[in-house]
Amino acid sequence: MEKTKIFYNKKIKLKNPTLLVGLPGIGSVGSLVAEHIKNETNAQKYGILYSPFFPPHVIMEKNGKIRMLSNRFYHFKNKKGNSIIILLGDTQPITTKGQYAVNGRIAKFFKKIGGKTVYTVGGYSISNSYIEKPRTFGVASNQKIINKLKSNGVIFGNTSGSIFGAAGLLPVFSSKFGLESACIMGETGLLEIDANAAKAVLEKLNKILEIDINPSNLDKIKKETEKLMKELEETSKQNPEQLQGSPGHKDNLSYIR
Amino acid sequence: MEKTKIFYNKKIKLKNPTLLVGLPGIGSVGSLVAEHIKNETNAQKYGILYSPFFPPHVIMEKNGKIRMLSNRFYHFKNKKGNSIIILLGDTQPITTKGQYAVNGRIAKFFKKIGGKTVYTVGGYSISNSYIEKPRTFGVASNQKIINKLKSNGVIFGNTSGSIFGAAGLLPVFSSKFGLESACIMGETGLLEIDANAAKAVLEKLNKILEIDINPSNLDKIKKETEKLMKELEETSKQNPEQLQGSPGHKDNLSYIR
Amino acid sequence: MEKTKIFYNKKIKLKNPTLLVGLPGIGSVGSLVAEHIKNETNAQKYGILYSPFFPPHVIMEKNGKIRMLSNRFYHFKNKKGNSIIILLGDTQPITTKGQYAVNGRIAKFFKKIGGKTVYTVGGYSISNSYIEKPRTFGVASNQKIINKLKSNGVIFGNTSGSIFGAAGLLPVFSSKFGLESACIMGETGLLEIDANAAKAVLEKLNKILEIDINPSNLDKIKKETEKLMKELEETSKQNPEQLQGSPGHKDNLSYIR
Amino acid sequence: MEKTKIFYNKKIKLKNPTLLVGLPGIGSVGSLVAEHIKNETNAQKYGILYSPFFPPHVIMEKNGKIRMLSNRFYHFKNKKGNSIIILLGDTQPITTKGQYAVNGRIAKFFKKIGGKTVYTVGGYSISNSYIEKPRTFGVASNQKIINKLKSNGVIFGNTSGSIFGAAGLLPVFSSKFGLESACIMGETGLLEIDANAAKAVLEKLNKILEIDINPSNLDKIKKETEKLMKELEETSKQNPEQLQGSPGHKDNLSYIR
Repeated sequence: MEKTKIFYNKKIKLKNPTLLVGLPGIGSVGSLVAEHIKNETNAQKYGILYSPFFPPHVIMEKNGKIRMLSNRFYHFKNKKGNSIIILLGDTQPITTKGQYAVNGRIAKFFKKIGGKTVYTVGGYSISNSYIEKPRTFGVASNQKIINKLKSNGVIFGNTSGSIFGAAGLLPVFSSKFGLESACIMGETGLLEIDANAAKAVLEKLNKILEIDINPSNLDKIKKETEKLMKELEETSKQNPEQLQGSPGHKDNLSYIR
Repeated sequence: MEKTKIFYNKKIKLKNPTLLVGLPGIGSVGSLVAEHIKNETNAQKYGILYSPFFPPHVIMEKNGKIRMLSNRFYHFKNKKGNSIIILLGDTQPITTKGQYAVNGRIAKFFKKIGGKTVYTVGGYSISNSYIEKPRTFGVASNQKIINKLKSNGVIFGNTSGSIFGAAGLLPVFSSKFGLESACIMGETGLLEIDANAAKAVLEKLNKILEIDINPSNLDKIKKETEKLMKELEETSKQNPEQLQGSPGHKDNLSYIR
Repeated sequence: MEKTKIFYNKKIKLKNPTLLVGLPGIGSVGSLVAEHIKNETNAQKYGILYSPFFPPHVIMEKNGKIRMLSNRFYHFKNKKGNSIIILLGDTQPITTKGQYAVNGRIAKFFKKIGGKTVYTVGGYSISNSYIEKPRTFGVASNQKIINKLKSNGVIFGNTSGSIFGAAGLLPVFSSKFGLESACIMGETGLLEIDANAAKAVLEKLNKILEIDINPSNLDKIKKETEKLMKELEETSKQNPEQLQGSPGHKDNLSYIR
Repeated sequence: MEKTKIFYNKKIKLKNPTLLVGLPGIGSVGSLVAEHIKNETNAQKYGILYSPFFPPHVIMEKNGKIRMLSNRFYHFKNKKGNSIIILLGDTQPITTKGQYAVNGRIAKFFKKIGGKTVYTVGGYSISNSYIEKPRTFGVASNQKIINKLKSNGVIFGNTSGSIFGAAGLLPVFSSKFGLESACIMGETGLLEIDANAAKAVLEKLNKILEIDINPSNLDKIKKETEKLMKELEETSKQNPEQLQGSPGHKDNLSYIR
C-alpha cells in the first residue's frame, strides 16, 4: 500500500454537502463532537480513507477481529434537507509529508463529490486550568464565512499562533479548491478529553449546520472517558509494548467509537 | 536499490499455500516459531525479499562472508500434502512508509502465487513477570477463521489495543486481497526471547496447519539464546559501534539462523 | 498537495533581475533585512511558493483569517532601473529532502524568469556575546563576484565550517544553473533577532544592489521584536500546543510581516 | 535537486578498474586511507557525486568560495598499469533510504564504466583502548576474493555483527551487479581519527592493489589531525550553529582534503 485511498458509496445522493471534520487533536474536542453527532443522528456510513501515512499498526476489536487504522465518512441530512458529511477517525498522518498529502487528498475528494463548505473542529488551549465556561473561537478563509459564523456566536480575532494538522490544513487546502472553509475551536484547558469544550462547539454547530443535537450526553461521555482513560493508563503501564499510537487514540472507549 | 524486491523459485509447485509469518517482534515469539518449524521440517528455500526500508547495514557471517538484510521464504508440505510457506528474516522495515510498502508487497506476492491463508505469529505481553503457562490469543479478519482457530484452542476477544508491524499489518492487507488471515499471539512477559510462549503457539499451529513438529527443542533454544544474549550484551558493551539494529536481531544465535 | 509550487505574476516585466533572499535563520538576520527592504521600498508582490516540505501547520492572523505557510517574492527597481526580487517567508523546509527540493526549485525558477545574480543573507556567529560593531562576511561561487563584494566592504576568507539551509544551498544550486551567487553574513552573537547585524549587512547591500535604504528603522524593529519576543515566550508557556514552528517564526511580530 | 547525480570524465580510459572506497566512518580509517593514496599518487579527478540525501548544508572554503557536499572519484594506475579509482568525500547519506539509493547508484555506475572489483575500507572497533598493533580484518562476497585477501594478510572469520553505511552496503550491492567485492577493516580503539589503523590497512592494500605507497606520512596526519580536532572542538564550543555535520566531517583539516 503506497498511496492514500478513499472508498465511498456513490449511491448516496448528496445535496449541498457540508463537511464536518473531527479528528484526534487538542482536548479531543474534534473527535468528541464528530462522534457525538454521528451517534445522535444515526449517520450512515459514506466512505473510508486508508493511508500509508498513518501509524504502522492495526486495532484489535472486542470481538476478536482486527482492522486497519482509518478515517471514516458518515452522511446525514440537516433540518433543511442538506447533506452533512462527518469525517472522523483513529488517527492523523504522523509525518509532515503525510499531513500535506492526506489533507490535500480529502479536500480534492470533497470538491469532487460536490462539496460546498468545510468546517474543522478543534481545541484551543490558553491556560492549564479547567475552563468552566469555554468560548468558541474561529478562523476562516474569507470574510463571508467569518460573518456567518460570527452571527452564530463564534469569536474571531482573539486567537494567534499556529494550528497543526487537519484542523488547520484542511480549511486552507479547501479554499484552494474554491470551497468555503473555517476552523471552529472550543476553548480548552489542556484536558486530554474535554467534553465541556465539545459541548460549547456543539451548541454553535447546531445553529451553523441547522441541526438539533442534544449535547447533554456529552457529560456522560466525559465521565465515561475519564474512567476509561484511567483504565487505559494502567493497562499501558503493565503492557508498554501495546502502546497507544497518538494522544487522540481511544480504542478502548467504546462509546465514542 | 530503490524498491522492495522478491526473488522466488517458480519451479516449486505449490498446493493450497498457507503463509506462516514469524518476523522479529515482541518476545521473538514469531522468529522462534518460524525458525524452529523451518529447521524441523528441513523446509526448502523458496524466495528472498530485499528492501530499501530495512536498516542500512549488512551482516558479517562466521565464514567471513557478508550478506544483505533480508526476509526469506521456505516451503514444505504438511501431513495432507498442502504447501506451507514460512516467512522469516533479520528485520522489519524501520519506517512507517516501509511497513506499509513491504507488508503490502508481501500480501500481493502471496496472492499472486495462489495463496489462500495467512497466519502471522507474535507475542502479546500483559505483565512483566515470566508466564509459566502462556495462553495463545488470536485476532482475525473474519468470523470463519475465528471459528477455525477457536476450535484449535486459540482464545479470541481477550486482547485489546494495537499490533505493530508485520504481525498486524499483513493480516489486514491480506484480507484486502481476499485472503483468509489471522494473527496468533503467545502470551509473554516481556522476555527478549520467550521460547515458552513460542512453544504454546507451536502446539496450536500443529493442529491448525496439520503438521507435527516436536516443540521440545524450543527448551534447548531457550537456554542457548539466553546464554548467547548475555555474550552479545557484553560484546556490545565493548564495541558499541557494531550495534545490533533491532531487538529481534540475533545474528550471533547460530541455532535460530 | 504533493509538490512544491510557485505562482507568480507574469505581467510584471523584469530587467536584469537580482534575487535577494532573507529566510528564517541565524539571528533572523536574513528575515530582518528582507522584510525591511520590502517595507521601505513598498515592493510589489511578485509570487508565492507553497511546499509540502514546510511544517504541517497554518497561521492564524489578527483579522480571524488563516493562511498556509509560504515563501513570498516581492519586486522593486533599484536606482539604475534594474529589478530586485526579494524572497522572504515564514519558514524553511524541515527535512533534508525538502531543503534540496525547494532550494533547487527556487534556483530553477529564478533562472527561468531571466535571473542573473542571487544573494542570500544570513548570520554568522562567532561568539556568544553581543557584537557592538558587526562585520559582514561573504562566501561566493566564483572569483568575479568575490571581487565585486570585496570592493563593497564584504570580508572574504575569514569564515569556515558549514552554512545550513537556503543561505548556503541556494547559492550553490544557482551557480549550477549558471547564475552568479553569494551568501552575505552579518556577524552575530547568537541573539534570536539581531537587528544590529542586519544593519551591517544592509549598509553593504545599499552599495551592492545600488539601492538607498535607510537602516535607522532597524533599531525600532530591534526594540519592538525584543518586546514581542517576550510576550510570545509568555504565551507559549501558557499555551504549549500552539507552538511556534521554527526559531525564525515571528507571526506575532506585525512590523516584520 | 531531487536525484543523486554522478558527473564523470569519459575521456579517461580505464583498464580493469578497481574501486577503492574510503568514506567517513569508524575511526575515519576509510577517509584517511583514501585521502592519503590520492595525495601520494597525485590521482586525477575522475568524477563527482551529488545527492539530495546528503546533509542540507554547504562547505565554506579558505578562499572564500562555497561548494556543495560531494563524494569524489580519482583515478591512477597501479604498477601493472591497471586502473584504481578512489572514492572519497565529505559525508555519507543521512537516511536509510539515502544509503540504499546512493550506494546502489555507485555500484551501478562502477559496473557501467567497466568495473571489476570493489574494496571498501572501514574501521572495526573491539575495545575502547588505543590499539598499538592493529590487525586488518575482512569480509567479502565470495570465497575467491576471501582467498586472495587472506594470502595478503587480511584476517577472515574473526568479526561478527553489522557494518553500517557504504563500507557494508557497497560490497553487497556490487556483488548483485556481478562484481567482486570486499570490506577491509583496520582494528581501531574508537579514536575519532585513527591513523595507526589506516597504516595497517594501507600495508595490506599495497600488496592487494599492487601499489607502493609510503605510509609514513600517516603519522604526520595523525599529529596534524589531532591538533586540528582540538581547534575544531574549541571553535564549535564558541560557535555551535556552524556545527559539523558528521563525525567524519573534517573541513578544517587541510591536509586530508
